[in-house]
Amino acid sequence: MKKSLIVLAITSNFVFADEGMWMPQQLPEIAPQLKAAGLELDPANLTKLTEFPMAAIVSLGGCSASFVSPQGLVATNHHCVYNSIAHNSTADNDLLKNGFLAMSFAEEVPAAPGSRIFVTKAVDNVTAQVIDAKTAKLSGKKRVDAIEANQKTIVAQCEQDIGHRCSVAAYYGSLEYYLIKQLEIKDVRLVHAPAEGVGKFGGDTDNWMWPRHTGDYSFLRAYVSPDGKSADFHADNVPYTPDFHLKLAKEGLKEGDFVMALGYPGRTNRHRLPSEVANTFDWSYPETVTYLAELLEIIDRETTDNRDAALKYASRVAGLNNVLKNRQGMLDSYAQSDFLARKQAEHQALSAWVNGNSANKKAYAKDLSNIEKLLQQQQQFGRDNYLLSNATPRLLGTARSLYRLAQEGTKADTERKAGFQERDLPRFKAFVAGMDRSFDAKVEQALDLHNLAKYVALPKKQRNADFDKALGIKDGMDQQALSALIASWYNTTVLTDMAQRNAMLESTPDQFAQSSDPFIKAAVALYSADMKREAEQEELAGKIQQAYASYMRAKIAFMQSQGKAVYPDANSTLRVTYGNVQGRAHGNEDGNAWSAFTTLRGITAKATGEGEFNAPQNQLDAIKAKNYGPYAVESINSVPVNYLATLDITGGNSGSAILNGKGEFVGLAFDGTLDSIISDWDFNPANTRSIQVDLRFMLWQMQMVDQADNLLKELGVL
Amino acid sequence: MKKSLIVLAITSNFVFADEGMWMPQQLPEIAPQLKAAGLELDPANLTKLTEFPMAAIVSLGGCSASFVSPQGLVATNHHCVYNSIAHNSTADNDLLKNGFLAMSFAEEVPAAPGSRIFVTKAVDNVTAQVIDAKTAKLSGKKRVDAIEANQKTIVAQCEQDIGHRCSVAAYYGSLEYYLIKQLEIKDVRLVHAPAEGVGKFGGDTDNWMWPRHTGDYSFLRAYVSPDGKSADFHADNVPYTPDFHLKLAKEGLKEGDFVMALGYPGRTNRHRLPSEVANTFDWSYPETVTYLAELLEIIDRETTDNRDAALKYASRVAGLNNVLKNRQGMLDSYAQSDFLARKQAEHQALSAWVNGNSANKKAYAKDLSNIEKLLQQQQQFGRDNYLLSNATPRLLGTARSLYRLAQEGTKADTERKAGFQERDLPRFKAFVAGMDRSFDAKVEQALDLHNLAKYVALPKKQRNADFDKALGIKDGMDQQALSALIASWYNTTVLTDMAQRNAMLESTPDQFAQSSDPFIKAAVALYSADMKREAEQEELAGKIQQAYASYMRAKIAFMQSQGKAVYPDANSTLRVTYGNVQGRAHGNEDGNAWSAFTTLRGITAKATGEGEFNAPQNQLDAIKAKNYGPYAVESINSVPVNYLATLDITGGNSGSAILNGKGEFVGLAFDGTLDSIISDWDFNPANTRSIQVDLRFMLWQMQMVDQADNLLKELGVL
Repeated sequence: MKKSLIVLAITSNFVFADEGMWMPQQLPEIAPQLKAAGLELDPANLTKLTEFPMAAIVSLGGCSASFVSPQGLVATNHHCVYNSIAHNSTADNDLLKNGFLAMSFAEEVPAAPGSRIFVTKAVDNVTAQVIDAKTAKLSGKKRVDAIEANQKTIVAQCEQDIGHRCSVAAYYGSLEYYLIKQLEIKDVRLVHAPAEGVGKFGGDTDNWMWPRHTGDYSFLRAYVSPDGKSADFHADNVPYTPDFHLKLAKEGLKEGDFVMALGYPGRTNRHRLPSEVANTFDWSYPETVTYLAELLEIIDRETTDNRDAALKYASRVAGLNNVLKNRQGMLDSYAQSDFLARKQAEHQALSAWVNGNSANKKAYAKDLSNIEKLLQQQQQFGRDNYLLSNATPRLLGTARSLYRLAQEGTKADTERKAGFQERDLPRFKAFVAGMDRSFDAKVEQALDLHNLAKYVALPKKQRNADFDKALGIKDGMDQQALSALIASWYNTTVLTDMAQRNAMLESTPDQFAQSSDPFIKAAVALYSADMKREAEQEELAGKIQQAYASYMRAKIAFMQSQGKAVYPDANSTLRVTYGNVQGRAHGNEDGNAWSAFTTLRGITAKATGEGEFNAPQNQLDAIKAKNYGPYAVESINSVPVNYLATLDITGGNSGSAILNGKGEFVGLAFDGTLDSIISDWDFNPANTRSIQVDLRFMLWQMQMVDQADNLLKELGVL
Repeated sequence: MKKSLIVLAITSNFVFADEGMWMPQQLPEIAPQLKAAGLELDPANLTKLTEFPMAAIVSLGGCSASFVSPQGLVATNHHCVYNSIAHNSTADNDLLKNGFLAMSFAEEVPAAPGSRIFVTKAVDNVTAQVIDAKTAKLSGKKRVDAIEANQKTIVAQCEQDIGHRCSVAAYYGSLEYYLIKQLEIKDVRLVHAPAEGVGKFGGDTDNWMWPRHTGDYSFLRAYVSPDGKSADFHADNVPYTPDFHLKLAKEGLKEGDFVMALGYPGRTNRHRLPSEVANTFDWSYPETVTYLAELLEIIDRETTDNRDAALKYASRVAGLNNVLKNRQGMLDSYAQSDFLARKQAEHQALSAWVNGNSANKKAYAKDLSNIEKLLQQQQQFGRDNYLLSNATPRLLGTARSLYRLAQEGTKADTERKAGFQERDLPRFKAFVAGMDRSFDAKVEQALDLHNLAKYVALPKKQRNADFDKALGIKDGMDQQALSALIASWYNTTVLTDMAQRNAMLESTPDQFAQSSDPFIKAAVALYSADMKREAEQEELAGKIQQAYASYMRAKIAFMQSQGKAVYPDANSTLRVTYGNVQGRAHGNEDGNAWSAFTTLRGITAKATGEGEFNAPQNQLDAIKAKNYGPYAVESINSVPVNYLATLDITGGNSGSAILNGKGEFVGLAFDGTLDSIISDWDFNPANTRSIQVDLRFMLWQMQMVDQADNLLKELGVL
């Protein structure tokens, strides 16, 4: 299901207790709670992005990470650098299987193309510039256009500072906007990764599960030009010197200890409106689960006897499985909960508050009523276009993007649609270059046949006439006819040729118009209808932005009237969440609970010598010999491996540094648990636990098994 | 392996923390610990056996129980009255399957023959009478004979009080002796048992396991003659009015709450000598595990196509499996522990203490050295006679017992060997009468063949010439020859005929001597050799009693010199153990822990609709409908089913009343956990947990599912 950019960003949140993904500048507001939980640092120190410890926290774009040495060493999850390890692996030198350890700077290898380390330098409220006086008066598409224009101006100005990447992020359901300025480090190198049997121990089976025994850590290093500037990879580049780096804790954690995660959580939806909850859990997620299962079955069938194709789709299959498990986990939790009823009751309380006071009523009542109607339109659009959206062949999407790029290229850069500007070209190039590694025509044709057959089965008036005409789809086409049609596209398209795709990055609209490629032809034919539909959606999105912001303003005022601190929903920007190391009274089975820590014993118990549980023999030997080094913990008579905490994290927090009450590094967040994934919508403090790899395990594995003495010296351990 | 009576009783114990099976009169010694754990009652109140609450605690002989109403209603475990339910079941009226509820006194049915309720009336130290001045000077067999004679005199005197059963129990390794006087209630009736799918839910699979969901409770009623005396079953009998009964707790337990178990633990061996530990765990238990597995395989094979035989051996198979699981569980724990090394270190500390002081040295050193040699002799005897003992056909054992009874019957009652007196005749009658229900000649012949084949394979000089001669066993007999020999016995024996066995209870030795029954002939032929061997064993036992008592006296003095309270090992007498409701940090798997409570959800999750997990449909319906009545607990959002506590219990404690800090009834103990069974030898507070059925579950099941309103009224609930 496609959503417009703005709606994706429309989220917000309100909290109690240690729930909360706080913007650093908010922490003084909750200083008493932080102190009570065990924070020894002054919360005011955490508000300064260019001071310790926040300056040590970085984003990898999709994952979180942190500087842990004065020479730009970065700690993050193994799964966050998986592609970089794979990229450097060959059949003869399988780094994924065997792990990787550079014994010197010279041995460090470039991370996967496109790898970045982003160091947040400033976060500034630019709401008044994004929604300036003129924009505030606008509605619908005009409002969207004005907001986008203002954002582009702000970003362009910010990126005058060479080597930085800037963005304007919406907070509180686009009630507020902040400019995020980040140093963009482009020369990223792989330093160390344990063997896959450590870093991915448990694989998909253990994904989102407890008890857990995954050594999900790896190390990168940031490189800059000799004069200290952001630069592409070059042999002369030198390790970056961060302003601050994290120090390793001298004392290990124990249950009950204060911990906080510093990172970049991706997306939460905790205070969506009741109708959004209902639409998501009663329609969207169930449809998704059914559909993804179908796709996975088709890909499996089509790649069974084709190892090459199977490898090309391995990453997508993993991703689809991940989403499937995630959505099904949420649906299972939803089925057992009274979430929607609570959500409705909360909304009624808000409505009562708004309508109980003439000033509030005047300020919010209209938008509160209006937003429901607008969201209903938006949801209806999603449902109406669901099969159409699924039925769009992947190469048609590619053609549409390339043609749009050409169209936007006819304008001045500042006038171009966001996402199609000069600054976006590197991403287009990477996309075009990388396609071959994840594309197989036979698989795509099978997927197209499946999707189009469902779409064609719709009554004609529920189908899209432009789409049908552009692709040659006719009423009542049977499987055979559809197959023949699809085959004709793939037999003639040139989009499967990388050189041709690359050339198209430079093509003009006229050149596209002369193409005989079936997908390009369809993209050109659909262009004006696409633009019309985009304008209609932007018209709606503009109305939604206005009404949603008003709804959120009302909600914040209502919550604050009750003395509750409010934090914005996650939006891939820097956040702090705090809590405690803590097991759980209810586990996987009635009468079982979760211990706060797992131990090396669990690795031995799970190890099968193959597949997902292929613990390295030298690790098993070290466990058997009880070579615990200085990392043994008497109370568990072993070395702790993973631990649970009450941290409020989500996707994007992977690799987040975990700090103790003194601000010392004590491990890395890498997962949550299946029965608390729904916390992205409905935070349940009794259920929600984050899973971390314990610093002691990292150091034990590095010292007693992998002999990473050089890194341990850099980390100040040896 | 046969052990003499006295050695079986030689056990003792020393403790710290809440470990301990305390004699009621000892509780004031540990008053500070009891108060600290949460006891609100005055510990002195618990020392009075004829006052509340101790007067409400009863023994069923092998199980514990308690009075819970003024009309003699007794609560105990379902598994403690299993035989009584089975006894009253028919194919048409399967009480085991469906449960049983008497709606009035008139509907209550007699419990299984031989059922008893014992109410302890007095416990008196009679050490000075058992080991009087004259006995103290004796050694060897003479000492054993004198001790037995004194015990018989004391018991006979005590049992002058008609309706009472008396016994002299050895404590602290027969260092001390106490006379236990119990009212013996002989008219015991079954009042209520839930369906087997509740009372035995989980069956053997869940036996000794957590998480647990067994509703292991049932109710009996004590009946006496209209004038209030102990009496055999009679229609005119009336419910017994106990002096005191337990009151149900108004408030439910929560984790951390104080609890105590009042009951009759059978046997523990915590402070055996190191050589006894080694002999048991390195030889005896491993042999037992191997042997029991062989027996079970044979019984299974021989009964596969014979449902009648399978039913006859069902109880024995369950018993053998139970022992096998128990012993294997202990061996598994032993293999992972340093128990023997600790035991040896403790013993060295004791030796050092004894030898570090001339008075101690004079008092104990000789016996401390002597006991080791004596135990070695005893252990050697056990090993030498192991295969012989196993190879003794069951019917030869029966014949020997009957002939011995005849021999003893020629003496005055007081002169007869303990176990063969007038007071023992009812047990003999029950044994003779019950044999048919557990005996199948084909199965016994297969067992005999297996056992005798191993025995015959021994070199001749390691075999017993008397035994060989009496049974016609010859050197080098092969399977065929053995089979023929065994078949000849079973073809001619009359012991398989109940009338004949009954008649033999009255036969004289001369009549036995004229019998042509092969087993009787062998018993008569072996008699003088048996008596000789018994005398030799008693000679050794007398020496052991003397030396062991001295060793224990030294150990108690040593422990008390360190300020440690000492309690005797369990010996089937009334004890109190206290602790707290508590889960466990380590569960069945690394990273899992045990919750303190299970809930109704777990029943639904385990229910399969058949076999061991056949939860009744009306129970499942009530759970589904959340018909929790007043028994819901908010923190678990359900009704608690079973709970863990740190109580120090063992076999015999089954059915023990669990009381809270106020002395109110909060459930029944019914099991321990497999990895803490070794606590019978080596108490480990981190591991050991008892399993209880929660009072709230009992009441929920009775009220919301089984509609036992009449009982709930009697219990004061409705």
